[in-house]
This record gives sequence, C-alpha cells and structure tokens, in this order.
Amino acid sequence: MERFVPVGISNRHVHLSQKDLEILFGLGYTLTHMKDLSQPGQYACEEKIDVVGVKGTLKGVRILGPVRKDTQIEISVADGFVLGVKAPIRDSGDLNDSPGLKIVGPKGEVELNKGAIIASRHIHMSVEEGEKFNLKDKDIVNVQIEGKRGLIFNNVLVRVNKDYRLELHVDIEEGNAAGLKNGQLVKIV
Amino acid sequence: MERFVPVGISNRHVHLSQKDLEILFGLGYTLTHMKDLSQPGQYACEEKIDVVGVKGTLKGVRILGPVRKDTQIEISVADGFVLGVKAPIRDSGDLNDSPGLKIVGPKGEVELNKGAIIASRHIHMSVEEGEKFNLKDKDIVNVQIEGKRGLIFNNVLVRVNKDYRLELHVDIEEGNAAGLKNGQLVKIV
Repeated sequence: MERFVPVGISNRHVHLSQKDLEILFGLGYTLTHMKDLSQPGQYACEEKIDVVGVKGTLKGVRILGPVRKDTQIEISVADGFVLGVKAPIRDSGDLNDSPGLKIVGPKGEVELNKGAIIASRHIHMSVEEGEKFNLKDKDIVNVQIEGKRGLIFNNVLVRVNKDYRLELHVDIEEGNAAGLKNGQLVKIV
Repeated sequence: MERFVPVGISNRHVHLSQKDLEILFGLGYTLTHMKDLSQPGQYACEEKIDVVGVKGTLKGVRILGPVRKDTQIEISVADGFVLGVKAPIRDSGDLNDSPGLKIVGPKGEVELNKGAIIASRHIHMSVEEGEKFNLKDKDIVNVQIEGKRGLIFNNVLVRVNKDYRLELHVDIEEGNAAGLKNGQLVKIV
C-alpha cells in the first residue's frame, strides 16, 4: 500500500503558558482565535510578540493557541543566527537545556531561561490512520519528496494520537530545501 | 569504495557581467578580491550591491568574481518571497526565461530582464576525482547526510572539470534543513 501524507510547513511561532501570556498581555488575558490549524484544537492567534536574542530581534512572531504548560519558541536555523542563539533540534515539549530568549509583548516582557527549539520534523496521524499505515506512536520513518529538489527525509518521527490528523510537519527551510508546498502529498517509504 | 565529499554552503550572491559592473560601479571598474573560494579562480569580492524586487529589497548582496558573460543572481526560496519573484531551480548559467530584478550599485542601476535563479545543488570535482569516484560530467547522484536532520539529497548533478575541486554545493536552506556545516564530509550513495 502506498502511504501518502499531506505536508504542513511551519513558520516560526510561539506557544505561551497562561502565566507568560498574562505578563505579556495583561492579567486575565485570553488569546484571540484567528484561524484553525490542521491539527484539531490548534489555532493561529491574532496576537504576535517580539523575540529578542543577544544578536538580534524577530519582530511580530505569531502566537499559536491554546496556551500550554510551558512557553516554547520554535524557530529555524536561520532565525537562530539572527537571534544569536543555538537552538537544538527537538520534539515539541522537550525543552530541557534549550536556550532561553526574551519575549516582549504590549504589556510586559519575559526573560525565559529555556524554550527555544528547532522542531524535529514529524508526522501527525490519528489512531485509525496509524493502523491503516501499520505505524505506531514514536516509529521513525523515511519520507520521499519528488521533483527537482527531490530528497528523502530520514529520521521522521511518527506521532499517533486520537486528536491528530494526518500531516507531515516541516519548517520553512526544510520545505524550501525540498521544493515543498503546503498540502502537497508526499510518500512514506 | 566510500565516496566522501566536503560541503560548501552558498549564501545569496551575484555574478556580474563587465558591462553591468561598469554601470553599477563606474567605467573601467574592476572587482576587489576579498577571499578565495574553494573552486580555483573564484573569489568573494569586497563589493556588494542591493537587489530590488517588486515586493522588497535584499541589501548588501555579495558579488563573486571574476566577471562572467551574463549577470546572474543566486537566491534562496525565502529570498524570492522577500523580493516577490518566483525564481526557478536552475544550473548555473542556465538563465533562459528566468525572471529579472533590479540591481543597484553606488554609481548606477541595472534593470535585468533575466538572471534570478535558485541554484540546483551540485558536486564539483576534478577529472582525477571523477575517475576515482567512477563518475562523469552530468551524472546524477544521491548524497546521504547523517544526523538528527539526516536526509538523502536526490538529483544531485555532478560537474567534472579540470578546474574544479571536490565539493558539494547547496544553498543555506538546504544546508540548514540537513543540519550541515561548511566543510562537513557527506557521502555519495
């Protein structure tokens, strides 16, 4: 069976804890839904913040909702050069020993002591999709991209959860390096 | 035999014709050598220019010497978004039907009607290296990158010439997507 997966390309973004959200935007603040993302329950927010490193600033970085337990800043390798921070390649939520950054909102700022990562590429899928593809949570697969910039991504983590929907997540540099477009179908090999 | 190749990561740059160089910098101008590149006879110049598209400008884009027959602007996919230009993935020198851009120097500017490309990844090698690796000019190979962002680049063009030195050329987005560093050894598979 051929196993095709649609692509979702992530730009830099921030997930905030409720505590940090309130420091940046004011006491009792709640995020403003702008647009649903493909993963159920996840959404892009109207709100943006600035991310400040020792070398430079990324202005207007989009916040994704809902709030999470810990604040997490997902950047690209190129963003890391702009900020002057060496972020590790990590799965979402794995923030141990990741570098901190300053984040600045309209009402305040937070000096984080961890939270900057470059997201590892991964495939979300539902339990049913996992069964159909004969894959389970934490499997590692290869993904083939066709075309002039064709390549095979190795070390792609499979994430199976009842709340997920089938999608390969890569960042902008991975997407551009492979000539990918959002929604394009690629193949698990 | 294992066939290892060192990596060279290219940032955006411009090659100028003598005619365009003189429009941008003045009659009879010659480029100022700053640093030799790995390919014999090629060098980075002190001079930079601005590249202007319909949507935005890339300021201070490095000129590489020596001058060439045609002016050529090598950008990344992300640069294309900044400029508002859809540059094709092309081998160096293949500029037919590529989009133009405006380039601006200290003494003048040139409205190009072609010349903006995203360079296809490729491997330079000498005739001797080609023989050792059992590869000839225009062969297409795959290149394996190890590591957390490990991947296999397909469609890598081999360029064999007596004036070349062994090196895989990728752009910054390809380098970052694969977690590469300049000079790192990767394997033809």
